[in-house]
Amino acid sequence: MAKLLLNADVGESLGAWVMGDDEALMPLIDLANIACGFHASDPDIMRTTVRLAAEHDVTVGAHPSYPDLIGFGRRSMTCTEQQVENFILYQVGALAAICHAVDTQLHYVKPHGALYSDMMKDHALLAAIMRGVSTFNPQLKLIVPAMLDPEPVQTLAKKYGLQLWFEVFADRAYHQDGSLVSRAVSGAVYHEQSTIVEQAIQLANGHPIQTLEGTAINLQADTLCVHGDNLASIQAAKTIHTALKYD
Amino acid sequence: MAKLLLNADVGESLGAWVMGDDEALMPLIDLANIACGFHASDPDIMRTTVRLAAEHDVTVGAHPSYPDLIGFGRRSMTCTEQQVENFILYQVGALAAICHAVDTQLHYVKPHGALYSDMMKDHALLAAIMRGVSTFNPQLKLIVPAMLDPEPVQTLAKKYGLQLWFEVFADRAYHQDGSLVSRAVSGAVYHEQSTIVEQAIQLANGHPIQTLEGTAINLQADTLCVHGDNLASIQAAKTIHTALKYD
Amino acid sequence: MAKLLLNADVGESLGAWVMGDDEALMPLIDLANIACGFHASDPDIMRTTVRLAAEHDVTVGAHPSYPDLIGFGRRSMTCTEQQVENFILYQVGALAAICHAVDTQLHYVKPHGALYSDMMKDHALLAAIMRGVSTFNPQLKLIVPAMLDPEPVQTLAKKYGLQLWFEVFADRAYHQDGSLVSRAVSGAVYHEQSTIVEQAIQLANGHPIQTLEGTAINLQADTLCVHGDNLASIQAAKTIHTALKYD
Amino acid sequence: MAKLLLNADVGESLGAWVMGDDEALMPLIDLANIACGFHASDPDIMRTTVRLAAEHDVTVGAHPSYPDLIGFGRRSMTCTEQQVENFILYQVGALAAICHAVDTQLHYVKPHGALYSDMMKDHALLAAIMRGVSTFNPQLKLIVPAMLDPEPVQTLAKKYGLQLWFEVFADRAYHQDGSLVSRAVSGAVYHEQSTIVEQAIQLANGHPIQTLEGTAINLQADTLCVHGDNLASIQAAKTIHTALKYD
Repeated sequence: MAKLLLNADVGESLGAWVMGDDEALMPLIDLANIACGFHASDPDIMRTTVRLAAEHDVTVGAHPSYPDLIGFGRRSMTCTEQQVENFILYQVGALAAICHAVDTQLHYVKPHGALYSDMMKDHALLAAIMRGVSTFNPQLKLIVPAMLDPEPVQTLAKKYGLQLWFEVFADRAYHQDGSLVSRAVSGAVYHEQSTIVEQAIQLANGHPIQTLEGTAINLQADTLCVHGDNLASIQAAKTIHTALKYD
Repeated sequence: MAKLLLNADVGESLGAWVMGDDEALMPLIDLANIACGFHASDPDIMRTTVRLAAEHDVTVGAHPSYPDLIGFGRRSMTCTEQQVENFILYQVGALAAICHAVDTQLHYVKPHGALYSDMMKDHALLAAIMRGVSTFNPQLKLIVPAMLDPEPVQTLAKKYGLQLWFEVFADRAYHQDGSLVSRAVSGAVYHEQSTIVEQAIQLANGHPIQTLEGTAINLQADTLCVHGDNLASIQAAKTIHTALKYD
Repeated sequence: MAKLLLNADVGESLGAWVMGDDEALMPLIDLANIACGFHASDPDIMRTTVRLAAEHDVTVGAHPSYPDLIGFGRRSMTCTEQQVENFILYQVGALAAICHAVDTQLHYVKPHGALYSDMMKDHALLAAIMRGVSTFNPQLKLIVPAMLDPEPVQTLAKKYGLQLWFEVFADRAYHQDGSLVSRAVSGAVYHEQSTIVEQAIQLANGHPIQTLEGTAINLQADTLCVHGDNLASIQAAKTIHTALKYD
Repeated sequence: MAKLLLNADVGESLGAWVMGDDEALMPLIDLANIACGFHASDPDIMRTTVRLAAEHDVTVGAHPSYPDLIGFGRRSMTCTEQQVENFILYQVGALAAICHAVDTQLHYVKPHGALYSDMMKDHALLAAIMRGVSTFNPQLKLIVPAMLDPEPVQTLAKKYGLQLWFEVFADRAYHQDGSLVSRAVSGAVYHEQSTIVEQAIQLANGHPIQTLEGTAINLQADTLCVHGDNLASIQAAKTIHTALKYD
């Protein structure tokens, strides 16, 4: 079985507010997507989270967002390409400084929430993100959703000298066109551990998965997203971690 | 006459709001203290300002602040040392990324507003700032106010491997203990161009200046702060620039 | 000539940043659209602006926005209807308290920027705004753009017990469907004073205006928007004020 | 036993972040101190919280703060009196609008965190708060800490036409001068339920309590603060609620 890196959004607390159980999640993951202060986190939490990742030998990535704390970066905002490029630079630079202080390094970038969805609908926005990442450091990987035809996005990444990591989800239903089923649709999120693990294993093996429409699709992926918001999701992460026999 | 570097706070616009006339000021200064988004500025303005500085061969520095846009960083906040160290790292890292994008480099840090005043009253806070700067890059200089007895502050800086630049003001009255007269006191700010230029020349030559109390003091300085908020201050900056014969 | 009330966005400064010349504009207008802290302003500026309006016997209205200072409320955000209803309530309530402190009263609401555009594209959003306004006080008028067929919007307003004021622009080109030409289009904004005044007079008289497409349309309006961002716009406001012979 | 009203800070969630268990706490309290968006909360959470209070017949109060989300309003900020007066007005007005939408009413104001501490050290600041409250509605009560000599503060309140409610804590140690022992001091916070309940009963009966210094003091109080941050504090609130036999 090829290695499918497990990634998770961490460091999403804010000041006095705690979100998720990063201590429980960190031993289970390979990649830590660390919030940079625009949708969650603050400089203290960033530092604590980077340190926690380093202690668990988890690879650190930046998880930049639209500037929207109250909306947790989940609300689309009509920012210009220049704005997006620059706030990628700002957030990635801020997190890189914190990494440096903790004697670790930044390895990749995964845009957060609405920005992550929006960039796949608008390649001019995706290009702006790529410019921000590449300008900072073209060695950084960029995480994007796995897709049936990755070639156009690959071509764009090549233009900016970037390497992509494609991401899949074990707990989400897919459409036959390779897109995720919207959370608004019933059945979009899997809750059965067996279903989740089965999809994780199929994806890890590069085997086809069933879509909402009934047909099977094949998504090539580098990384699988797990969650740590609550006990159930941490349990799912544990089960996936074990099923993929990474220990 | 030894060279007294002219520094100014620039890049203090915010979104749609314009502050100061950076285009007029930039040709007159040596050091550009660039706001980092906590008391002013945003990623777009940071980039525009760094580019403007680079075009004029002005040395770029970070101007980090307490997080307080509405108060413009002028209100003291009882932050912990850890908080201060980390938000120095965050702001300096963000600006360094923008500098890198513009193919220029960050050379120094000058804390802004209330943070600048507070650090001189509380050396634990000053040490936190030094840790933030030094952790990021010990080659960065730190600007602090010139003082009659700089030795304790020099010793602290040495501990963190930092070099200091001492700052003086040509348009502000000094007390005989070397501290600035509070703006709340009548006569604290000089408006006469001749007075301002005279104090600038005295400071540039390392000669004593008159204090509010009538005695003269000698402040060794590396840099002199000029302003660009309005036409009068830009005119003063021009006059100082000419008087110090830097062209 | 029927009275066309002149309205303007005022109180859009923020902390240390000044925007527009409210002192020059206030004597020229009938309605003051006062920012409420989400796209601009703070409690001090709100109070100063309400007092200035009261001194000039200008009717005070709330100018609520999406929460986005850096974007000045000009970036669309995908907020839910419930969010929009509640942040209308929040902003209107905050401004009403300030009005009460200055012994004046709130008379109307004009949504700002992207929220103003978005509500006309999405009547569910408009309904959310109406619920917010009506819940607070159904005596408050709501300003919406003038349109060729106001009936659907009138019907919606009636449902919430609200009265509408329709707004037109003298310095903007209209399409033949009654919508404003986007600022991105060349010719969208008129700069010639004579053109602006002519359109103002036509609108004030209820006469047809020329559209970009060449045909003439008739827009029934209650209020005309003028600006105070710069000298030219204040001059235009003066000219309109005089042309409409309101003194 | 005279009735000692139980008050608690509620509605301190923010966007996606949850704080405390308001559902569990609301049935136990008489007064709900509701955050207004400056240290916690947003318009949606404010509305949900006011509705929850109304459903439990809990009296609603505003819990205004310095503007500092990351610091949760616990960091002192050197705001001017005018700033404080105006942000009291702003926050109280915003919450009053939300109350109106839920068909309930605002009854009192309790300043939050650092503002609550600062106002007792600086009566000019306290007067600014009183002006804000009284200007909005002099019928609103203002909660201040119980003290050995309440007369000066009573006199100030009378000047602004306000009635005060004095607050005590059952889980905090007091100094013999009537001030709370700082949380930084060991023994400042009681964790033993029996100790907490004993102090609550003494306070409710108007009987003396033991101070850190060993002497007993008598604090006249109208309300006692309980907490809902975690299970232990909710258990303590239940025990106090039962001990004071309010059902």
